[in-house]
Amino acid sequence: MLKYSKIKSPTLTINSKIVRNNIKTMMDKLPSICIFRPHFKTHDNKKTAQIFKEFGINKITVSSVNMALDFRKIGFKDITIAFPVNIREQKNLNKLCSNTILGLTFSNLQSVNIISKLNKIKANAWIEIDTGYNRSGILWNKFDEIEDCIKIIKDSSNLTFKGFLTHNGSTYSLDKKADIINSTNDSNAKMLELKSHFTSYNPMISIGDTPGCSIMSNFDDIDEIRSGNFVYYDLMMLEKGVCTTENIAATVVCPIVDINLERNEIVIHGGAVHFSKEFIEIDGNNVFGKAIKHIGKNINDIDEKVISLSQEHGVIKITKTDIKNFNIGDLLEIIPVHSCLTANLMKGKTLHYSF
Amino acid sequence: MLKYSKIKSPTLTINSKIVRNNIKTMMDKLPSICIFRPHFKTHDNKKTAQIFKEFGINKITVSSVNMALDFRKIGFKDITIAFPVNIREQKNLNKLCSNTILGLTFSNLQSVNIISKLNKIKANAWIEIDTGYNRSGILWNKFDEIEDCIKIIKDSSNLTFKGFLTHNGSTYSLDKKADIINSTNDSNAKMLELKSHFTSYNPMISIGDTPGCSIMSNFDDIDEIRSGNFVYYDLMMLEKGVCTTENIAATVVCPIVDINLERNEIVIHGGAVHFSKEFIEIDGNNVFGKAIKHIGKNINDIDEKVISLSQEHGVIKITKTDIKNFNIGDLLEIIPVHSCLTANLMKGKTLHYSF
Repeated sequence: MLKYSKIKSPTLTINSKIVRNNIKTMMDKLPSICIFRPHFKTHDNKKTAQIFKEFGINKITVSSVNMALDFRKIGFKDITIAFPVNIREQKNLNKLCSNTILGLTFSNLQSVNIISKLNKIKANAWIEIDTGYNRSGILWNKFDEIEDCIKIIKDSSNLTFKGFLTHNGSTYSLDKKADIINSTNDSNAKMLELKSHFTSYNPMISIGDTPGCSIMSNFDDIDEIRSGNFVYYDLMMLEKGVCTTENIAATVVCPIVDINLERNEIVIHGGAVHFSKEFIEIDGNNVFGKAIKHIGKNINDIDEKVISLSQEHGVIKITKTDIKNFNIGDLLEIIPVHSCLTANLMKGKTLHYSF
Repeated sequence: MLKYSKIKSPTLTINSKIVRNNIKTMMDKLPSICIFRPHFKTHDNKKTAQIFKEFGINKITVSSVNMALDFRKIGFKDITIAFPVNIREQKNLNKLCSNTILGLTFSNLQSVNIISKLNKIKANAWIEIDTGYNRSGILWNKFDEIEDCIKIIKDSSNLTFKGFLTHNGSTYSLDKKADIINSTNDSNAKMLELKSHFTSYNPMISIGDTPGCSIMSNFDDIDEIRSGNFVYYDLMMLEKGVCTTENIAATVVCPIVDINLERNEIVIHGGAVHFSKEFIEIDGNNVFGKAIKHIGKNINDIDEKVISLSQEHGVIKITKTDIKNFNIGDLLEIIPVHSCLTANLMKGKTLHYSF
C-alpha cells in the first residue's frame, strides 16, 4: 500500500501489481517462438527491470548506448540498441560487445559501411525499416538498398545479419482504435512482404510500438516484439483506447500549493521538469495530465484535467468536483500524458508500491 | 575553445564568455539599490553558479526546496524560493532556515496561516502577486486579502514581511517586442500602485521574467529582479527579439545518425529527453530548435530547423544548405527552444568552454 504521508514533493509512484499484470498480459498473447524483448526506455529504473527479470525476461531493447551500459551493469547481457547506430560512440560499443550480446540498428548504407569495417565491434545487425512513419530507416520497398546493406553485413567478419526492425510510430498520432489497427496491419504486411522478398537470407522481423502491440492478438508471423510503454501505459494510451485505467501503473503524486476559487483552478507543484511538456488534445483543448485522485482528509476519486504546465507549476481546472473540497497541502494523483518522458524526468523521485 | 572531437553523444555546451557578457549586461542596467537575485533554475549546475559568484552575486532565487538545498550545499546562504510555499516540506524548510537567509513565497492566505504558526521556520516572507498572468498568487488589486496576509505575517514571531513578488509570465507568450514592453509596463504599474497602497508597510517589489527584464532600461522603482533565463537565453527569446544570437550561451551538440536525401531530412541523436518537448511556432510550423552550425570535415554556419522530436530522435529539415554536405557522424550545434528545460535534462551531459 502506498503511504501518501511519505510524499512531500512531486513523486512518481509505480504500482508493481499493475506492472506485473501488464507484462503478463503482453506475454500471454505471444506464441512461444516470438521473442519478447521489451524496450526499457520507459522504466529506466532498476526496480521495474527487476520485475521483468521475475518473468524470465533477459533480452532487452534500449534506445541509447548509455542506457545499454546502465542495464549491462545490472546484469542484462542481451541488449539491442533500437536506435540508428551512432558511429561516434565506437569506444563504448567496443566495451559493450566485449561482454554483451549486442544488437545494433542500421538505418542507412553509410553506417553499415563504417561499422562493418570496425572489427572490434562484434554485434548482431538489424536493418531499420521505415514502413511509413518516415522518421529514420530505409523505406521498406527499397529492396536494392536493403540488399546492399545485407550483403555488406554478410560479407563482414564482425556483424551477424539478424533481420528487419521497424518502429511504426505512426500509431502514436492516431486517435481511433480502428485507425491504429489499420496502420498496424499495413506496417506488418510491409514487413512480411520484405521478409518474403529476402527469404533466402532468413531474416527475422522485429516490431516495436505499444499501441500496435497492445491491440494485436495474432503474433504468429512476428519474430520479436520490442514494445516498452505498455509496462506503465499513460494518458495518451488511455485516450486511444489501447489500455484501460486499470492498466495505468505510473502516476505522479503532487502537492497542492495554491487554489484559485474564482478561476476554479488548483496549482500543484508538478511542472514540465516532472511531467515533460508533452500534451494531447481532448475536445479541442491541450491536456497535460489527468488528476484521478484527491488525497486530502479523505481519499476520493476525481477526474480533472491539467490545463497548463510551466517549469515547476501545473494548473488543474476543476470542473467536476467542488473546488472547496481541496486544501493547500493536499495531494493529487495524476496520470501523465507520456510515461516514458515522465519516468526519465523523475529518476530518483520514484516510489514503488504494490496493493 | 570547444573540442568537438570530444563530443560522442548529445552534449549541452555552455559558452562561459557569453554567460559573463549576459550577466554583465543585466547588472550594468541596474541601479545600485536594486537587488540582483538571479533565478538559478536555468543554470542548475555548479560551474555557471561559480561565474555568478565571480560577479559578487550571493543572493539567489530558486524554484523548489530541493534546489535551495543543492545551492546551499555549494555555499549560497541567501536564497528565495520563488514558488508557492509547499507546506508538506516543513522538515526541509526547518533545515534550510537553520543556516540560510530564507525567503518564502506566499500565494494565498491559507499558507500564510499555516506557516506563520510553525515557529521553527524563520523566513523572510514575500506575497506573490498576480498582475494578470493568472497562474498563482493573489490578484494585485485584492487589497483586503493582501492586507490580511501582511497582518498575519507582521503578527507572527517567525516571518518577516519583505514585500511583493511577481512573475509576469505573460511575456513568454507574446511574440512582439512592443507587446512585451506593454505587458511589462502594465505589470510594473500594478506593482507600483500596490506598493503605494501599502506604503506604511514599506514593501519591496520583486519582479522576475527574462523578457521584461531584458527589454527594460529603467529599474529605478524596482527593488529586486529575479530573472534567470537571460544567462543562457534560447530560441524562444531570440525569436521574440529580446536577445541576439551573440547572447545564446547554451547550445546542444548532437551527432547525425541518419540522413534522408529524398525527404531532405537529417536525424540526430537528440530528442525530447535532451531538449524537452517545448516548441515555438515559426511561420505556422512547430519548431523544436534551430541548427546553427555543421561540424563535419569543415565547420560551417547553417540555419535549419528541428521540425520534430521523439524520445531520442530529432528530425531536421534541410532547406537552406545542400543536404549532400552532411555525413553520418557529423555534429550539429542546435539552439534549444527553452534552455531552462534543456539544462535540467542535460545535467551531467554538459561541457563548459570559453573562446
